[in-house]
Amino acid sequence: MRSAAVVGTGLIGTSIALALRGRGITPYLLDVNPEAARTAAELGAGVVGAPRSPVDLAVIAVPPSRVASILREQQLANLAHDFTDVASVKAGPQEEAAALGCDLTRYVGGHPMAGREQSGPLAAQGDLFHGRPWVLTPSSRAGGRAVGRVRTLAELCGARPVLMAPGQHDRAVALVSHTPHLVASLLAARLLHGEESQLQLAGQGLRDVTRIAAGEAELWTDILGANATAVAEVLTEFAEELGTVVDALRGLAADPPGRRPAADRDRLTAVLSRGVQGRGRIPVRTPASDEQLRLSGAPAGA
Amino acid sequence: MRSAAVVGTGLIGTSIALALRGRGITPYLLDVNPEAARTAAELGAGVVGAPRSPVDLAVIAVPPSRVASILREQQLANLAHDFTDVASVKAGPQEEAAALGCDLTRYVGGHPMAGREQSGPLAAQGDLFHGRPWVLTPSSRAGGRAVGRVRTLAELCGARPVLMAPGQHDRAVALVSHTPHLVASLLAARLLHGEESQLQLAGQGLRDVTRIAAGEAELWTDILGANATAVAEVLTEFAEELGTVVDALRGLAADPPGRRPAADRDRLTAVLSRGVQGRGRIPVRTPASDEQLRLSGAPAGA
Repeated sequence: MRSAAVVGTGLIGTSIALALRGRGITPYLLDVNPEAARTAAELGAGVVGAPRSPVDLAVIAVPPSRVASILREQQLANLAHDFTDVASVKAGPQEEAAALGCDLTRYVGGHPMAGREQSGPLAAQGDLFHGRPWVLTPSSRAGGRAVGRVRTLAELCGARPVLMAPGQHDRAVALVSHTPHLVASLLAARLLHGEESQLQLAGQGLRDVTRIAAGEAELWTDILGANATAVAEVLTEFAEELGTVVDALRGLAADPPGRRPAADRDRLTAVLSRGVQGRGRIPVRTPASDEQLRLSGAPAGA
Repeated sequence: MRSAAVVGTGLIGTSIALALRGRGITPYLLDVNPEAARTAAELGAGVVGAPRSPVDLAVIAVPPSRVASILREQQLANLAHDFTDVASVKAGPQEEAAALGCDLTRYVGGHPMAGREQSGPLAAQGDLFHGRPWVLTPSSRAGGRAVGRVRTLAELCGARPVLMAPGQHDRAVALVSHTPHLVASLLAARLLHGEESQLQLAGQGLRDVTRIAAGEAELWTDILGANATAVAEVLTEFAEELGTVVDALRGLAADPPGRRPAADRDRLTAVLSRGVQGRGRIPVRTPASDEQLRLSGAPAGA
């Protein structure tokens, strides 16, 4: 891969462009908002505007609901030989691309598992993807050249390419990213009803639990809407267990300390213990991702 | 205050003892588990065993359900002139103490707002309370000497004393600490059902959301049980909004992208936006803001 274009110079698109610049490739930068593309270019992420002849790979870095239409548009405009995207949801956009008549031999869906609460080109970091998984979801029609180029893109960005089926990817991110985001948002929303004196008692625990809830509401509506089925499934299981916990708490609240029902205590302990175990299943971060944390000064979300 | 004892040399008790040692006071260390007291002493937290004559202040550092009985026991044993505790729940233990016939003129409830996921004396840190709020919940019967000594204890530990009524404290921590803990546990528990390949996609976001879920299940059962009413209330509101979100997701899942109901999108965006706003209400913790609070002479929450 010798040439590239980035369509959509937000946080992710600009971070990819910066990473490519660091590897000797100068991407062409396009955005519906010309100001965003100019800002990215001023940050050293590439040059504004479309190339005269097709580049090797174009990265469509837009919200999930816009991927298919922009892929179609840029394939018709002959922006690149091959195409990928970076959306957090893969099955729906790929189906839409097929329905719109996109050339799927020259398209491979992708999702770099990195992000920040901040958005826009000014939040971009060339090392955002260091040591992170970068999921590739090639359809059965994807050509070998396209798959190879998207894999190379991930590697040039310092990420670790991981092959998955689109539906498999979507169920995975529902569990490890989208549901956690919604739960953090619901929790943070409770704080709107708190008094100032209550919030003064907040500590690092609350800050950490709600950190990802600071993400852009419009973008996350798009992501969650595009993965609604898988997220609703995880969230429904979550809600069922939550109901059990509320029942147990009501049972404990109704009785004085000495007579609190052992069954309610046990139900609480069981959930808390499973939480300890589930937490233990999260892979320990790699030295590469630690390095990224150190450099960015702000933890990356997935 | 010239002398002190700590009953219960776990994470918090030992951290307090270490802080007092740093200020020239050598606490007497007691624990039902002699091994824990010896470990704390070996860490330099004080000397094992009861004093020959009463110390100025004894700190009861045990789970909420044990506070009243141990306060009663140590008042009868004449361990100290004045007493405090450090439990995360205040109203219940104080009522129990009254019911057991404890001398409430010589007792002031306290709660240093600091902790770690690890427990036990080996996790203790003398600077654990630096810059943190330390809530004092004196009853109407509390003597001025006792209040003054507990306030001094908080200051010796580098914390910021904040006066609150017990019920006010319990509702505040239900919102900013206990409910977040339970929600993090419920979320982490979902990961038990995930496949290895799904968990490999986890990033810093998931690590942060679930960090506090690693806390000891038995201790947290005790805390949540002791504050069941207030936690159930916040959690019920959380569950209602969660239900709205699941409905919205199901609405979005049922329709193709172009025809997704705007009302469902809007409901999602509303929750996410309120999450962003709620998150924004958490005070930023900086040495400067701590200093400002101190100088203003208006302890938040008082």
